[in-house]
Amino acid sequence: MKYVGIDLGGTNIAVGIVDENGTILHQSSSPTLAKNGSKDVIHRIADAVLKLLEETNTPQSDIASVGIGCPGAIDKSTGTILSACNLAFENVPIVTELKELLKLPVYIENDANCAALAEATVGAAAHSQSCVMITLGTGIGGAIIINDKIYDGFNGLCGEFGHMTICADGELCSCGRRGCLETYASATALARDACRTAKKMPSSLLWSFRERDGSFSARTVFEAAKHGDATAQNVLDQYINYLSIGLRNIIKILQPETIVIGGGVSNAGDDLIIPLSETVLNTTYGDYVSAHKKTRIVAAKYKNSAGIIGAALLGKEIST
Amino acid sequence: MKYVGIDLGGTNIAVGIVDENGTILHQSSSPTLAKNGSKDVIHRIADAVLKLLEETNTPQSDIASVGIGCPGAIDKSTGTILSACNLAFENVPIVTELKELLKLPVYIENDANCAALAEATVGAAAHSQSCVMITLGTGIGGAIIINDKIYDGFNGLCGEFGHMTICADGELCSCGRRGCLETYASATALARDACRTAKKMPSSLLWSFRERDGSFSARTVFEAAKHGDATAQNVLDQYINYLSIGLRNIIKILQPETIVIGGGVSNAGDDLIIPLSETVLNTTYGDYVSAHKKTRIVAAKYKNSAGIIGAALLGKEIST
Repeated sequence: MKYVGIDLGGTNIAVGIVDENGTILHQSSSPTLAKNGSKDVIHRIADAVLKLLEETNTPQSDIASVGIGCPGAIDKSTGTILSACNLAFENVPIVTELKELLKLPVYIENDANCAALAEATVGAAAHSQSCVMITLGTGIGGAIIINDKIYDGFNGLCGEFGHMTICADGELCSCGRRGCLETYASATALARDACRTAKKMPSSLLWSFRERDGSFSARTVFEAAKHGDATAQNVLDQYINYLSIGLRNIIKILQPETIVIGGGVSNAGDDLIIPLSETVLNTTYGDYVSAHKKTRIVAAKYKNSAGIIGAALLGKEIST
Repeated sequence: MKYVGIDLGGTNIAVGIVDENGTILHQSSSPTLAKNGSKDVIHRIADAVLKLLEETNTPQSDIASVGIGCPGAIDKSTGTILSACNLAFENVPIVTELKELLKLPVYIENDANCAALAEATVGAAAHSQSCVMITLGTGIGGAIIINDKIYDGFNGLCGEFGHMTICADGELCSCGRRGCLETYASATALARDACRTAKKMPSSLLWSFRERDGSFSARTVFEAAKHGDATAQNVLDQYINYLSIGLRNIIKILQPETIVIGGGVSNAGDDLIIPLSETVLNTTYGDYVSAHKKTRIVAAKYKNSAGIIGAALLGKEIST
């Protein structure tokens, strides 16, 4: 059987036909145009699916189910998007409407959970008994997968790793509290710390690597550190130290077999994963724990396609 | 059917016959005498079980299984106690030996997990989809139960809430790291803070409530605060603030339906639970989350008997 995955974003609707192994066979993308209202968006989603099936000569009878990954707050029991700020959707019964238009089973899930499901089942954490995905971007998001199933708590709100306090009375967070992991370990925090530190070291490579508008990015810090700049290395060491506190807390609580690092910062690959992994494991486990019983830390396999793959696999997750 | 539960402690072996609902029908207790070695202890455990069955006219055919809760590190796949400091046991294949002596199925589990299983299935968190138990004693221990099953990670090491960092560069912990929850929210931490603060306020009721040997206990602080002592109330407010950071972190990550508070500090009952619950929920959830979707915080139902009940129910947990 094949599965359809839909990644509903604020800018684009991405649709894919995915096989049992999570491989995208065909895909398309079209603008979301959320300002036209939810009815219109839902009709264009259905049109995009039917068009992709037709263009690729995929009979509808080959499709086991359709999954949709959505931003915002979702009620899975009713298939409703309760509230999605970047779509301006409120109480949209998207599952019922798509079912009518497509005449196929339709499943819905939060987009972060979809990405994690893709990584846990066919991505960087395939074959892990349990997996935590943490996304280091503007903020910090996350999701938990246990035995290839999404675990999202009794109320669907779990995996909010970004708002775990790691420093009582620390940096002020956008949530109004202090010391959240997000304020130390997001891409935004890394860029902020680079700016703060480089300003005081105008002779550093890091300072000279700033963007034309004077801003910094996570990438800048990794690049300057790679060129041997001590200022950048200090910023990076401090960043990895804070991030490792967050990961250690997750491990102490959950002991997932694998932690998958996603989001913009994860583009640094081994330059992030190797020192991070070393710091986390050295400070989490005693010598008596053998290597194969320690959580593995890896970079995400999929970038933009994780949403489609995870959404497609929702039907497989639920039917097995 | 009935179940036998064994709570193997450093001082006593407690044995109980438990019904399907977790009610202890009969129980006995005998000294562990761990210094006589594991062979002897295991034989006396078997004797205690057989004696209790005989004395209560319980036919062995009424017993579905035997569960044993043990301290220390356990390998459930082989039924072995790998290492238990307070018994001086190393690599003891206790399940195999008990099976031979009792001719019944035998299950083994960590004692903290047994207590949590009792609370989650028939105790303070009965009927919860998910439950976290946190034990506030000399240190801080814990366990996670999801759908009435123990969740202990891919390596059996999870639920170590006491060593979650809540304050980078904070108080030094016995684990060698800084800012662990245990250093702020264990019974030991509460007593330490009471001592530190009361010393500076010799006119306070708290100071006058100190033990004869000059020490403080968690109970002292609650008592002095109940008598209206501002110094004790300050210590308690600060304690609840730190504990609430730990619980909020657990909720942000796991969103359990219920958190059960056990250990010595939980004896304060509502004097702890009411202000703690208020602080945690006010700082964890926005107004948009309805009350029935917020984690419930409750005191443990069972004190000393949780170990027997949870151990007995291991057989039920595994067979269902």
